[in-house]
Amino acid sequence: MTAVKQSTGPRGSKQLIGVDWGTTSFRAYLMDERGRVLDRREAADGILSVEDFDACFENHCGLWVDSYPRAPILLSGMIGSRQGWVEVPYCPCPAGAEEIAARLTRHATSRGRQIAFVPGLSWRSTSGADDVMRGEETQIIGVSGAGRQVMVLPGSHSKWVEVVDGRILRFATFLTGEFFAAMSKHTILGRLMTGDAHDARAFEAGIAASAEAGGLLHHLFRVRTGGLFSRWPAESLSSLLSGIAIGHEIRGARDFFGGAERVLVVGGATLAARYAEALAVLGLSTETGPPDAAARGLARLAERMTS
Amino acid sequence: MTAVKQSTGPRGSKQLIGVDWGTTSFRAYLMDERGRVLDRREAADGILSVEDFDACFENHCGLWVDSYPRAPILLSGMIGSRQGWVEVPYCPCPAGAEEIAARLTRHATSRGRQIAFVPGLSWRSTSGADDVMRGEETQIIGVSGAGRQVMVLPGSHSKWVEVVDGRILRFATFLTGEFFAAMSKHTILGRLMTGDAHDARAFEAGIAASAEAGGLLHHLFRVRTGGLFSRWPAESLSSLLSGIAIGHEIRGARDFFGGAERVLVVGGATLAARYAEALAVLGLSTETGPPDAAARGLARLAERMTS
Repeated sequence: MTAVKQSTGPRGSKQLIGVDWGTTSFRAYLMDERGRVLDRREAADGILSVEDFDACFENHCGLWVDSYPRAPILLSGMIGSRQGWVEVPYCPCPAGAEEIAARLTRHATSRGRQIAFVPGLSWRSTSGADDVMRGEETQIIGVSGAGRQVMVLPGSHSKWVEVVDGRILRFATFLTGEFFAAMSKHTILGRLMTGDAHDARAFEAGIAASAEAGGLLHHLFRVRTGGLFSRWPAESLSSLLSGIAIGHEIRGARDFFGGAERVLVVGGATLAARYAEALAVLGLSTETGPPDAAARGLARLAERMTS
Repeated sequence: MTAVKQSTGPRGSKQLIGVDWGTTSFRAYLMDERGRVLDRREAADGILSVEDFDACFENHCGLWVDSYPRAPILLSGMIGSRQGWVEVPYCPCPAGAEEIAARLTRHATSRGRQIAFVPGLSWRSTSGADDVMRGEETQIIGVSGAGRQVMVLPGSHSKWVEVVDGRILRFATFLTGEFFAAMSKHTILGRLMTGDAHDARAFEAGIAASAEAGGLLHHLFRVRTGGLFSRWPAESLSSLLSGIAIGHEIRGARDFFGGAERVLVVGGATLAARYAEALAVLGLSTETGPPDAAARGLARLAERMTS
């Protein structure tokens, strides 16, 4: 009893401090040895808005660091990029938790505490094109299981991934979120748009458009004529554009990954719901990943750390 | 001799004043009865930068208007849009010079001179999607001939057009130019780019990428990794992106128009050369349209004007 209590209580070695630190957000987790989240910190302190990473980390996690002097500390995401705290070389695919954990980059904080950075993944296609991710690999590890899984992690740079028995075989990035933002804000399409509330009918019309002849650059013009001919109210044009973009992403990914009958959607609730809606329109069944995928992945990687 | 001289000389009725007035440019032509350009005015006075259209027209063309009191005056382009001088309803396709000339909108300038605006064209696909053009119809009329022609008029909003015996059957807009500008300037892709000099090898690699699996939103990411992994120098990334965009436009248009063996490219010399290069890479033969397509079209429409 006493031994068990010691190993999970304060000053024990079975806690883990995990940080998912991206370009625009900071999410830290204090976890027990089974990966259950005991405490968390979330802030808008993404790497683009932070100058002193060490101070920022101490500010959010210093208390945990002091309370659990033997807890491993693991950081994933863009914090390991050239613009981050320590640049971590990419780990080439195929890769699973073993390969990733074997390539952690160690570093000491200004207070002398050892921390480890998770590498991002790279993949080179047969045609010689490179693809990369940083941070998503940890979420993928967190939700991967037995057998073949096709996953999408929607976002500014959506990632589609093929995972077999927990190993990431290959993946493809789609610039959907950035494309949507740039087209909405910086082209003629945005001029007729008012608001961005979700209109399911316009969104589905956009997805349907993506299946017609002509391709994305042509389908985009429907947002213009849809407004010009008042076929859609101005407040629905954003959903129409979103449907066209996500429809093209899914169709492109389907080409890429061949027969994926069932797609695991891993991401925030709103965007995950949108993708599930789009996948259903295109006849693909979906499953939604558990929350805190990154925390689960950090815990799985920590299990494999050699101290 | 005297009669001929009178009909083509000053104060005769056989001259024509034609204006191709778009969003960012103003091009005016004084032509003889055979459509030959006798004089011209070009200025950056597009409709977006002009407040008083009447004064701008008089400023550039007032001398011609005075010198040729019986010359018809014809204006085409965005000057006939809601944001222009007089809004002209679209003429539905199929339409040739006859239909377009029958739908001119007349107007009197502040000095009481009659002018006529050329309507843009609209087309509705079988799926119910609308497409529109304003200004390009006049260029198309200017270069159309006998038989079937597939044309591209490259630009911010590229137009692909199927013309049979001088009648425009259908067309499709591709937002290629605006897309390229928005992605270069307002996404992460632009951060690694330096300059925009043409690199034919990177441009062709972009066109080749457009044929691979995954679609445009995925292929875009190659501009990022191409820079990240130093596969292309920073100054070539703009050409890579341009090749990806134009490659997707051409592939989309080919789907749309089926078997076009030979494409007529109508536009400015630099962009026309780029499109000819891309079409050749994709195995399509090309022909370059004559210069001053708009002037030729205005002359052809003027021939059909009823006074």
